Amino acid sequence: MLKSAEPFTFENGGSIPSFTLRYETYGHLNDEKSNAILICHAISGDHHCAGKYTDDDRKPGWWNNMIGPGKAIDTNRFYVIGSNCLGGCQGSTGPSSIDPLTGKPYGLNFPSLTIRDIVRAQNLLIEHLNLNVLYGVVGGSMGGMQVLQWAIEYPDKVQHILSLASAARQSAQAIAFNEVGRCAIVQDPGWEEGNYVSGKGPNVGLSVARMMAHITYLSDKGMEIKFGRSRRNDSKGHHLTKVEFEVEGYLRYKGQSFTNRFDANTYLYFSKAIDRFDLLGETGKLEDVLSKVQARTLVIGFTSDWLYTPRQNREIVIALLRCGKNATYAEVDMDLGHDSFLIDSPELYNFVRSFLND
Amino acid sequence: MLKSAEPFTFENGGSIPSFTLRYETYGHLNDEKSNAILICHAISGDHHCAGKYTDDDRKPGWWNNMIGPGKAIDTNRFYVIGSNCLGGCQGSTGPSSIDPLTGKPYGLNFPSLTIRDIVRAQNLLIEHLNLNVLYGVVGGSMGGMQVLQWAIEYPDKVQHILSLASAARQSAQAIAFNEVGRCAIVQDPGWEEGNYVSGKGPNVGLSVARMMAHITYLSDKGMEIKFGRSRRNDSKGHHLTKVEFEVEGYLRYKGQSFTNRFDANTYLYFSKAIDRFDLLGETGKLEDVLSKVQARTLVIGFTSDWLYTPRQNREIVIALLRCGKNATYAEVDMDLGHDSFLIDSPELYNFVRSFLND
Repeated sequence: MLKSAEPFTFENGGSIPSFTLRYETYGHLNDEKSNAILICHAISGDHHCAGKYTDDDRKPGWWNNMIGPGKAIDTNRFYVIGSNCLGGCQGSTGPSSIDPLTGKPYGLNFPSLTIRDIVRAQNLLIEHLNLNVLYGVVGGSMGGMQVLQWAIEYPDKVQHILSLASAARQSAQAIAFNEVGRCAIVQDPGWEEGNYVSGKGPNVGLSVARMMAHITYLSDKGMEIKFGRSRRNDSKGHHLTKVEFEVEGYLRYKGQSFTNRFDANTYLYFSKAIDRFDLLGETGKLEDVLSKVQARTLVIGFTSDWLYTPRQNREIVIALLRCGKNATYAEVDMDLGHDSFLIDSPELYNFVRSFLND
Repeated sequence: MLKSAEPFTFENGGSIPSFTLRYETYGHLNDEKSNAILICHAISGDHHCAGKYTDDDRKPGWWNNMIGPGKAIDTNRFYVIGSNCLGGCQGSTGPSSIDPLTGKPYGLNFPSLTIRDIVRAQNLLIEHLNLNVLYGVVGGSMGGMQVLQWAIEYPDKVQHILSLASAARQSAQAIAFNEVGRCAIVQDPGWEEGNYVSGKGPNVGLSVARMMAHITYLSDKGMEIKFGRSRRNDSKGHHLTKVEFEVEGYLRYKGQSFTNRFDANTYLYFSKAIDRFDLLGETGKLEDVLSKVQARTLVIGFTSDWLYTPRQNREIVIALLRCGKNATYAEVDMDLGHDSFLIDSPELYNFVRSFLND
């Protein structure tokens, strides 16, 4: 855990007097300190990306299929750092943390957060770990946005970047979905202008937001294969509000379980940070910022990802190539939508392994 | 307005002692009574599909671009009937109507509703109008489902059917979106198990449901063209909950205005009727039911419609052709997503006009 006693000033103004960033590491740092890979998580992720703490853990870390001894991100070779994001709710400083100035949770007094803020805080962690370079920065979705920002913000420090299922800027449709989620949360009476008691927050709104978002992480075809029109029981569904189709029960479970592990205000802050992410900026030209990149780049898109489409992923590489950079685009043909980057896929593992072994 | 004093028994059980179906007509019935076209509306539509009641009306009927003198559905030639659906909330009997047995609104005591129930009630309207045949039955989305059901249920009565942007069965993804909307509604404390006072219902939940559904009616590309990342003001968006992007303001407006004109329980009933619509039934073969169809059929899909994809629309025609029926599929290349069927398009008008003039 990084505990920084220095104030942190945010890109859009505001500061906090100190902050904590929670992280985990896997594998060993070599003597040259040249084998570190930073893993950046997506909106609902955290620092715990591989392994189990105890044998009794129900689930391992969220990217355990990708990260581990002999796996595509091989912890026999690499020193892997899973970092929680600033603004998060799993031990890092975020809106649910206590503001030392007031003794109460920050709530909406937590400053406006951007992907750049998240990356700048991660950089302080990297400095804290006495690392001058990162062999790689890797992440999918919101994690991919951090990856790109890393290569722009600290071009001298990053040797390889690998962005999966992400985009150089949030699309109107993706903003729209996030906005519906935010409206569901802030209109839940339990939100109380962000001042809810921890654990008694806007669970209904957060659950609805998560259910909807979860649809955008899957695909039409993937849902057809996984659920189709399977019914949960023989009711023939004459009831209006009970679970009738399997897909309904699945989504309700996903929504409900999310409220047990995630803070609603963090969800608001992260979703806004994503929506404001726009590397094309005011000029509308991706090349203007990507010209700073020095890292070798691999961008991976997934055919069935309609949240961050193959086109959006490809655009990043096209812009890098226009700047004369060393960049490759790979597309994986999977039916599972945006979440494909989290799923077992030998082809995906091969791409990742080959890139990191280069 | 049809006021039936006879009991109506529903497909899945339950009955109501009487019912009202509100409708409008445009143009004139010819002496042979052979020029009637029934218009079936989508989930948020109603019977008022063309014209204005007074010059002061802010908007004309919802399909005014399609229906009128000299238009694609030409009221100089056809007698056009716009029928509200059973279960609706614009003057027809639905969950917000008073149950004559209790003196209170039906609420969730309104029987389980199917597309077939809606069509069977429309047929009573057609009988009430002393029509033995319909020259055509036309509708998009949920309206298209009614169109298909008409041709199956009353093959002798229907000469032409025209279904737009619809499907022979609701997909898992489309069920999933409807389920999120229903969860938003029934978890709103204002819903009160369906027993809310009219006008004071679950407006937050209904608004969230509508916002989300509205995204599914548009398309990624259409939203990019219409809104992109345009910001509403110069705030640069440091606020977490105020409207920052134009697309957010648009969706909030759509959600809010929907609550002023639509009943939440009707939304629940209609969305469930849609989710349960499945012409493939237990055999999984569309041909098993479509073999009954005698009407000439035109099905129109839209390239950018991801709620009811071109493939789903095409499947209907392929099955009809397998049964040796007279059926055509047309695809209109438009960027506007599912709602394309409501938008001004000379190509669409030509398809509709040619088909009805055949």
